[in-house]
Amino acid sequence: MSEVLTGPVEVVGTGLLGTSVGLALARAGVEVLLTDVSSEHVRTASGLGAGRPRTAEDRPQLVVVAVPPDLLGAVISDALEATAGTDAVVTDVGSVKTRPLVELTGHPEVDRYVGGHPMAGSERSGPLAASAALFDGRPWAISPHTDARPDAVALVTALAERCGAVPVVLEPGEHDRAVARISHVPHLMAALVAGRLADAPGDHLALSGQGVRDVTRVAGGDPTLYGQIVSANAGAVLDLLAEVRARLEEVIGALAVGDREVLEALLAEGVAGTRAIPGKHGGPVRPTRTVFVSVPDHPGELARLFADAGEAGVNIEDVRIDHDPGRPVGLVELVVAETSADHLLGSLESRGWVTHR
Amino acid sequence: MSEVLTGPVEVVGTGLLGTSVGLALARAGVEVLLTDVSSEHVRTASGLGAGRPRTAEDRPQLVVVAVPPDLLGAVISDALEATAGTDAVVTDVGSVKTRPLVELTGHPEVDRYVGGHPMAGSERSGPLAASAALFDGRPWAISPHTDARPDAVALVTALAERCGAVPVVLEPGEHDRAVARISHVPHLMAALVAGRLADAPGDHLALSGQGVRDVTRVAGGDPTLYGQIVSANAGAVLDLLAEVRARLEEVIGALAVGDREVLEALLAEGVAGTRAIPGKHGGPVRPTRTVFVSVPDHPGELARLFADAGEAGVNIEDVRIDHDPGRPVGLVELVVAETSADHLLGSLESRGWVTHR
Repeated sequence: MSEVLTGPVEVVGTGLLGTSVGLALARAGVEVLLTDVSSEHVRTASGLGAGRPRTAEDRPQLVVVAVPPDLLGAVISDALEATAGTDAVVTDVGSVKTRPLVELTGHPEVDRYVGGHPMAGSERSGPLAASAALFDGRPWAISPHTDARPDAVALVTALAERCGAVPVVLEPGEHDRAVARISHVPHLMAALVAGRLADAPGDHLALSGQGVRDVTRVAGGDPTLYGQIVSANAGAVLDLLAEVRARLEEVIGALAVGDREVLEALLAEGVAGTRAIPGKHGGPVRPTRTVFVSVPDHPGELARLFADAGEAGVNIEDVRIDHDPGRPVGLVELVVAETSADHLLGSLESRGWVTHR
Repeated sequence: MSEVLTGPVEVVGTGLLGTSVGLALARAGVEVLLTDVSSEHVRTASGLGAGRPRTAEDRPQLVVVAVPPDLLGAVISDALEATAGTDAVVTDVGSVKTRPLVELTGHPEVDRYVGGHPMAGSERSGPLAASAALFDGRPWAISPHTDARPDAVALVTALAERCGAVPVVLEPGEHDRAVARISHVPHLMAALVAGRLADAPGDHLALSGQGVRDVTRVAGGDPTLYGQIVSANAGAVLDLLAEVRARLEEVIGALAVGDREVLEALLAEGVAGTRAIPGKHGGPVRPTRTVFVSVPDHPGELARLFADAGEAGVNIEDVRIDHDPGRPVGLVELVVAETSADHLLGSLESRGWVTHR
């Protein structure tokens, strides 16, 4: 077994993630073999440049299983069978890491399997939504079980790096508790909030601002897929939902009796949580300031704004374009380092932009 | 009483919202008078160009009360007293509209008061966070009570328009139920999700993606202010929290017994909710597609990207710059009309950008 990724790499399942892995590896010059129960998906992914259909003669160095959560254990097991007696490594890109291991218990060659999970996705699915850039700069969890061969771990780490991602090693149980907290529970709560909007009167929804859009965005994902994901991680998700339920009871109790102290403590806990999320580039969160600029909503105006901001020598950390319910003018929020805001404002104003210091 | 906003307008309370109203009216050429218990805040707001300190001789046409929720009823009442026997109209910019009215019950000149609520804000507070553009294109709820004079309603509507906002008329009780649904409950749920991150291990948080950042962003707001806001709207908020609690129990029950059908139905309700939020410009949500581009993280590169996108004649609907935990390259997501995506991709690729179709 080699720790160097030389290929070929077989991708089993040519949906959003599998096709994106194929595209990213092809971009990196690695030969990719494609397998899917849908020969049409294979043709589509192949046509996009994600690799070529696998033939019986192919001998992959690495098999990447990219199938729906419910099928992971069985397809990983099949991949170990298909490569039995070889040095081929098997990995997956599934959202949950302990459940497939349970299904693989006792498999004689499980030491050739190392779980993986790229933290990237989209509200869209299927090969046509794929992108070679999907993993660029994103965390990619590597979750070796206790029997995994070290050279297999190294090869899967190399896969993450060749796809442009940043490997983060987490033991399977730790991984599952982590994603319950930073992905599965946020998704479920977003769905509960969004669910309350489904039958709301239109004039109530007309007041919607960026806040409710942000809170509910992830709830737009495919219910079947997310149903499989959270079910596969039910234990860790239930532990956290019990905490959420207890806090929700506290909020309801505090509101009912007007206990401002309890309410503020819960809100302050939320503020602390938002600050705990790592900043851009994994470093501490730098103080930023938002600069508002009114921009006509037609092609070229944003380009002119960014050209002018670029001339000012200011790095834009983040951008938000506000949804404007009634007028063909967008409000653009440029997030910049606090120390750069005044300079940027002065510079934009001198070029005629409508802004305010 | 005139329905035409000629000024002067007195702004009582020169925090984020009050100072922004002053700046927006000053931009529109309306004379603004400033009052605050903090003379330093008045000096700051005045120095920013939001108006001049009010003197005893001034006779405002309209008084805008922009004080914290707990003080609204008392300060609105004071403003009616101070203008007793005149035609001056009093409004406010508070987040809740029925509670102040309860405190004003029986006031002999309550017909000169019409509540308002601009749907704009910031995680920051104070006059230095203010902006003349804060209300541009945002909904501004106008909530006349049954005794409000029609010409007072017209004048407050004119205020919203002169500040650049889009007036949306909603009866006070309707308004409070609407903001409970699209603002207060989403805020509380975001705080509950964010609260679970406060003590999470660092290597768990290292997996954080855009999803959890979006779900929790609003939870970064001032706990004291939001404690006042949700307390003032406790009735409507509690009604919805009871619904959320019931659905949370369903999720927990379904996960515990592996009932996939119930889980998927709840997730599907969330999808329907995200689709119910009005799209940009208040119209139906148009199908969009996200285009990924890798961009070096230094000044000028975003400008070059937007200039190239502008040359392609494609209108950018939204932008996201992904936080990149390990590398000095950002992944920029450009959201464009589905019908424009292929043209934009081809155009950017021909200019050397790393992207994918």
